[in-house]
Parts: sequence; structure tokens; C-alpha cells
Amino acid sequence: MKAVVFDAYGTLFDVYSVTALADQLFRGRGNEISQMWRQKQLEYSWLHALMNRYVHFETINHHSLTHTLNQLQLAYEPEQIASLLDAYHTLNAYPEVKNALQSLPPHYRLAILSNGTHRMLKAVVDHNGLTDVLEAILSVDDLQTYKPNPLVYQHAVNLLHTPKEEILFVSSNGWDVAGAKAFGFEVAWVNRLGKARDELGVYPDHIVPDLRALPSLQS
Amino acid sequence: MKAVVFDAYGTLFDVYSVTALADQLFRGRGNEISQMWRQKQLEYSWLHALMNRYVHFETINHHSLTHTLNQLQLAYEPEQIASLLDAYHTLNAYPEVKNALQSLPPHYRLAILSNGTHRMLKAVVDHNGLTDVLEAILSVDDLQTYKPNPLVYQHAVNLLHTPKEEILFVSSNGWDVAGAKAFGFEVAWVNRLGKARDELGVYPDHIVPDLRALPSLQS
Repeated sequence: MKAVVFDAYGTLFDVYSVTALADQLFRGRGNEISQMWRQKQLEYSWLHALMNRYVHFETINHHSLTHTLNQLQLAYEPEQIASLLDAYHTLNAYPEVKNALQSLPPHYRLAILSNGTHRMLKAVVDHNGLTDVLEAILSVDDLQTYKPNPLVYQHAVNLLHTPKEEILFVSSNGWDVAGAKAFGFEVAWVNRLGKARDELGVYPDHIVPDLRALPSLQS
Repeated sequence: MKAVVFDAYGTLFDVYSVTALADQLFRGRGNEISQMWRQKQLEYSWLHALMNRYVHFETINHHSLTHTLNQLQLAYEPEQIASLLDAYHTLNAYPEVKNALQSLPPHYRLAILSNGTHRMLKAVVDHNGLTDVLEAILSVDDLQTYKPNPLVYQHAVNLLHTPKEEILFVSSNGWDVAGAKAFGFEVAWVNRLGKARDELGVYPDHIVPDLRALPSLQS
């Protein structure tokens, strides 16, 4: 194993850390908003990719949020949308992330491969003090499609100049795990929420509750 | 307008008509099961298409159901799975469907374009007495991909020998509406559940509460 490539949203950064702000803006509805927003955000990424009509993740984030508020019949002001979208730049990393990444053997190259735009990813990585820990931040935005399109995983191979057999891919998202495994990476599923595995015909090599288990994985 | 092409599941046939059986098999959990099953069924179709790893809809239906039961921590027997999958062959048409289709001007050619396999679609169409009303039942299975891949909508143009501008596409699924409109059909969204529209950058030409409004649409 030469490189470890991490998914960002849900794996390193807690997308539900926007719940408190949503709850403050829409009293008592924060949990519902953040759950539906995340679900629609993912759906819209898959659908835009499948329709061959790419729009970048900041637009998808905006559109999935307005759909969510409309579906929940919550009236909103542009400023409320703007502050929730801004909150994606300051999502919290999960508590173990920084230590876990710093505990990996120093010869491992570490990178992010994410649906987010470069701007979004740079902001959230900086906010969590991870800039110096990561060698590369790779975005689907360079390819104009979304995970789990195999072209996205190939992008990491190309930019890291590392064969796929020598890359460990780490994600908490079952569909991303399936896409990465089908592509040919060794894959660790971070099952933070104790979910049932997705039944997409391919399964992770490792299942861990959080990133602290990574250094002990035998490949 | 020369042809009217209908989505099947959710548009002509009520996918939640399995709820009663699910409730009988898993006491009190029928609603949860049928909601999550449908959601996962759609997700898996998009994901398989995006991964370029097609498996047909009977397999997706099976896998999304077992995932759902596992996620809900419900123990099950193979016979329970089999009977829920069989129930997809006898889904109920929505009450207005047959009359509405028969009320359309007789020069309109009527067809189904669906994610289901030919076997599944033939069964549910026969069960609801719609075989003689429809000229064609078109399945993604001939193409080995899923909606909203534009190739699927092109398949209807090819097999009906009708230009896309002369096809009215009718679906209750917001993501299918977006795919069909982006492809170039005239599109009617059957918003049976009073949902907020999906924000996928393209929008239906018509919004109707059920199929009774179809004959009065001006194109």
C-alpha cells in the first residue's frame, strides 16, 4: 500500500454539523433539514451525472437545500440559504480524524477524493487544520461527473501516479465504497452509524467504526 | 402530439400497494418497509447505471428489499422475500388509470417506458387489464442501463419511430420528469403526493394531480 485516499463528506467531515445552525434558523427543524438536505444532495449528484448534465457541487448543495426547505414547507430568506451553504466551509472534522491521519506510517501518501469543488474542500480542510497532513485534494470538478462513476476513481490513480492495487480507499458512504471496490481499490468502509451494508454486488475489504482502526489494517 | 409514453412504477402502478402485505409479514412495519424499499430501489438503479454495472430490476428489487430489512433489523425467511417480490407483479394501478388511458384521443399511441424487466411489466399490466390499451411496453433492460440516462428516452423514440418533439412523457417521479425534459420530450408531472418540485435545472411543461387531466392538456 502506497497511498490512502479519503472521501471527504461523511468520512472526514461531519455533514450533520450544520444541524445546530439549521435548528437555530428554523426552530426545531434542524435535524429534518440536515437529513433531507444530505439525502437530496447525494441524489442530485447521481442524477446530474447520469443525465450527463454536470453542475458543480456548490450548485447542487444550493438546489438540494432549497428543495428541502420547499418540501418541508419552510419559508426562507436568501440570507438563511447563504449562511447554511457557508456552513459547509466550516463543517467539523470527526474528533479522531487529525490524530488518525497523523498516526499513519509516514511513507503513506494521503489524499482526498471528493464530490466537492476545490474551493469547498480547501476551505473545510483549512478550517480543520488538515492542510499540512494531506498531499493532495482531488475533486470530481476536474472531470465534470460524480462518484461512483469509475472515471472519478481513475482520476486518483492518474494524479497520484499510483496503481489502483496500491491505493487504500476510505469512505463512510456505502455507495462510494461499492464504486471504489468495483473500480479496483482496496476499500475500508467507515461504518460510523452502524448501518446495514449496501447490497450493490461489491463489498469492502475492511469495516471499521472510525479512522482510529486504520493503522492496524493488514492488506 | 403523436404518442404518450408513461412511466410505470409510481405513475400507473402504486408501488406502495405492497404495504399491506409487508405489514402482515412484519407486523406494524409495512409503511417503513415499503418507503425505504422504494427509496433504495431507486438509489440502486441510479448507482448501478453510474457504475456501469447493470443488473436487472428484479435483482435490484431483491437487493434493495434485503438491505431494507437488514437496515430495519428485521429477521426474515426466503419465503417472505419471495412473496414481497411477487407482489410487484400484482401492484394496483391507481384508480383512474384505465379510464384515463381509454379517454385519450384514439390517434394517440400509448406506451410504457420503465426500469422494470419485460417479465415484471407484462405481469403488472396484465393484472390490471391494461394489455389491450397499450401499444408497446418498453424496458431499459434492452439497453442495460437505467433512467434518467438519456439513452433510455432515446429508446422510446427509436422503437416508436416517433420524433421526440411529438412525444408526451408522463411520470410521477420528479427525477424521471427532469431526465425526460432534458432529453427533449414534452413532459407532464403527475404530482400525486403534492411534493415540492425537484431542482434539477429542468422542469415539466405540465403539472397534474392525476391522469384524469391528461386529455385536456394543450401542447
